[in-house]
Amino acid sequence: MKSSALSKLGKRTALPPISWLMQTALTRPKLISLAAGFTDNSTLPVEISRKLLNDILCSPKTGQPALQYGITAGESNLRTLTAKHLQKLDGGHDRAHSLEHVIITGGSQQLLYMTLEALCDEGDIILVEDPTYFVFLSILQSRGIKARGVNLEPDGIDLAHLEKVLERLKKSGEIRRVKALYLVTYFQNPTGATTSLAKKSATLKLLKKFERAAGHPIYLLEDAAYRELRFDHGDDVPTALTLPGAAERVIYTGTYSKPYAPGARVGFGILPEPLFTAVQRIKGNHDFGTANLLQQLLAGALSSGLYDKHVAKVQKNYARKALVMKQALAEHFPANVEIWESGGGLYFWARLPKHISAGVKSRVFQTALKADVLYVPGELCYADDPSRAKPDNEMRISFGSANEENIRKGIARLGKVLKKFV
Amino acid sequence: MKSSALSKLGKRTALPPISWLMQTALTRPKLISLAAGFTDNSTLPVEISRKLLNDILCSPKTGQPALQYGITAGESNLRTLTAKHLQKLDGGHDRAHSLEHVIITGGSQQLLYMTLEALCDEGDIILVEDPTYFVFLSILQSRGIKARGVNLEPDGIDLAHLEKVLERLKKSGEIRRVKALYLVTYFQNPTGATTSLAKKSATLKLLKKFERAAGHPIYLLEDAAYRELRFDHGDDVPTALTLPGAAERVIYTGTYSKPYAPGARVGFGILPEPLFTAVQRIKGNHDFGTANLLQQLLAGALSSGLYDKHVAKVQKNYARKALVMKQALAEHFPANVEIWESGGGLYFWARLPKHISAGVKSRVFQTALKADVLYVPGELCYADDPSRAKPDNEMRISFGSANEENIRKGIARLGKVLKKFV
Repeated sequence: MKSSALSKLGKRTALPPISWLMQTALTRPKLISLAAGFTDNSTLPVEISRKLLNDILCSPKTGQPALQYGITAGESNLRTLTAKHLQKLDGGHDRAHSLEHVIITGGSQQLLYMTLEALCDEGDIILVEDPTYFVFLSILQSRGIKARGVNLEPDGIDLAHLEKVLERLKKSGEIRRVKALYLVTYFQNPTGATTSLAKKSATLKLLKKFERAAGHPIYLLEDAAYRELRFDHGDDVPTALTLPGAAERVIYTGTYSKPYAPGARVGFGILPEPLFTAVQRIKGNHDFGTANLLQQLLAGALSSGLYDKHVAKVQKNYARKALVMKQALAEHFPANVEIWESGGGLYFWARLPKHISAGVKSRVFQTALKADVLYVPGELCYADDPSRAKPDNEMRISFGSANEENIRKGIARLGKVLKKFV
Repeated sequence: MKSSALSKLGKRTALPPISWLMQTALTRPKLISLAAGFTDNSTLPVEISRKLLNDILCSPKTGQPALQYGITAGESNLRTLTAKHLQKLDGGHDRAHSLEHVIITGGSQQLLYMTLEALCDEGDIILVEDPTYFVFLSILQSRGIKARGVNLEPDGIDLAHLEKVLERLKKSGEIRRVKALYLVTYFQNPTGATTSLAKKSATLKLLKKFERAAGHPIYLLEDAAYRELRFDHGDDVPTALTLPGAAERVIYTGTYSKPYAPGARVGFGILPEPLFTAVQRIKGNHDFGTANLLQQLLAGALSSGLYDKHVAKVQKNYARKALVMKQALAEHFPANVEIWESGGGLYFWARLPKHISAGVKSRVFQTALKADVLYVPGELCYADDPSRAKPDNEMRISFGSANEENIRKGIARLGKVLKKFV
């Protein structure tokens, strides 16, 4: 039997580029990885989780339900706490944070996947930031969805370019295939950029303007995975959910993985109809609901206040590590490397002069590997968009999992490599 | 904007029939539900899980990793324990239980979903037992995959009918779209039937025979979700994995949800190449790996021997409840209702005389509801197969979640209803 029985999706789904990077990291024990977007082991809420799980499983009221099946959209307690949590982050705003449209998922990754299932046929188009979260691009690749890139600035999407891209798609007729614009709005992966509220508002209006040509709604898919990893305690940027018209057009995805624990993977989102119903049904087919034990753990953390305390600690830790990396970058990197600094998240973004490649096959990357330091080549974060070449002169550098000593050492190694080429 | 932006899948995905049944159960507090396939609350491993989680989160070696990201295919410890566990169930047989092809998933439901993603395009055909697991049928419906039913006997699939169906599909040319035969091989949902090894072997050979006409492999997808819920401690039927040629053609899915805890949802499977690689990549896009905390919980249960002890207890409990239901059925059901008895699982299957409908809209079902007792109408377990009408004279009756008193009362109520119509 020569021919395989795989589906188009099965045949098409590519090896994620990051898995090769992770493998590389595992096989070289001396390697300092500034590549992984892992959270810091030392800040994981081990003792808090032990205590909460112990309480949950000691109580007759919660013990058995935690180990039983639940409801597809999520436990009502956690859904309520999640709606309140989001309202609080948005300064009490409740326009579109309605409980009925909250869904609990296996990380926000699962929600991104199911949202794309509900929205896109093969050949449909999703607009993305240039660059963007590479696992989102992997989903698009796997599902045969086309991505079209929109330039990104440190305060979010380039509105003039967004309009230009939409106009171009309108002219070619492809606007009928455009289903959504995907934005990682807080401390973006990979650049650290945060989208201002003014840009969210203008973006929503722009998308609305092209709906007549599209013949259907064009959604704003707001991925807020890194929102709570901010370095200071000032007000954060409100979500697009708080804007007029958002209730019908904004899909919001968030997660407790990054701020709390990836190993207790719980994500959440708010979706407008008819998407909420469609995604809920799709989730019924995927797994009929995220594991109750994890949902109860998060509900316990949120309702006890331990979650907030933990997040404050995590924020301080990343703020300190980001500062260490910032200082090391200033000390070791050549002056003509442009650094994007962020107010939160896990990443710095470095742009080498345009003629110098930092891509997977580049001498910079290979030399860095030999010097036992790993970064994510920026080119992996660019969609396959035939309308422009992929920039390959950029690097995502993470301070997530490395400790302060390794951050300093890693940046020193990387700086030494760069000085050879820049 | 009148038109929706949903994908074909998004528009097509139907409300699962069972969710309406569950809603009904929730809104009628006096109702005795013999419908849900929930496991028995009283047997959930609350104290065992508390202890294991406490140990995991107290140990410096396991505490942080349990809350961190892991590997997409699953933690190597749990994968090894799972391979060993399956070998043990199969009497030491290890022909196709190779560790490299074990994947850990969010319940076996997620694995069924991803397997269908990897195998089937819209319009492809999966052969299923008549009747079969209705959430599997929901996945097929959602993804535009056609189902074709094969008659079922108490010892598994009707081989003569399987051959007839395959011949018919060959004649029509549709055999080229047939990707797999789906069998729930142990204490089947909904009938309780268990497939004999002889039938598994003959089935594999039959499928092989039609591969030339199909132009590609035709897989045997063996869903063993209920395997460990057996009532006696005799040897169980070996999996199709133990048969010659299985390594290339058998997909095996299993779960720790039913025997251990649905709230700590961990499933697993063994897939031949190229399916394993495709499914692993798809899982990377879904959630890049099942929550480590749950994986470590199961690994702890398996390696400590607490899992085996717990399963023995669960088996005894269901055996006792099945006996209670059997006696109640003998006492209260009319003699001309045919009962399929099972050696495990959670269900009895009842066939009324052919002219009497027990379907959702039937007088039997409505009268039962009024009498505050709920069952799953058998018709919901039949695929949409235009080549035959759906039988509607059957009922799935579960002793999973009800206690002994409610089993007696529920069957008495149901018997009283049936005596009015039969």
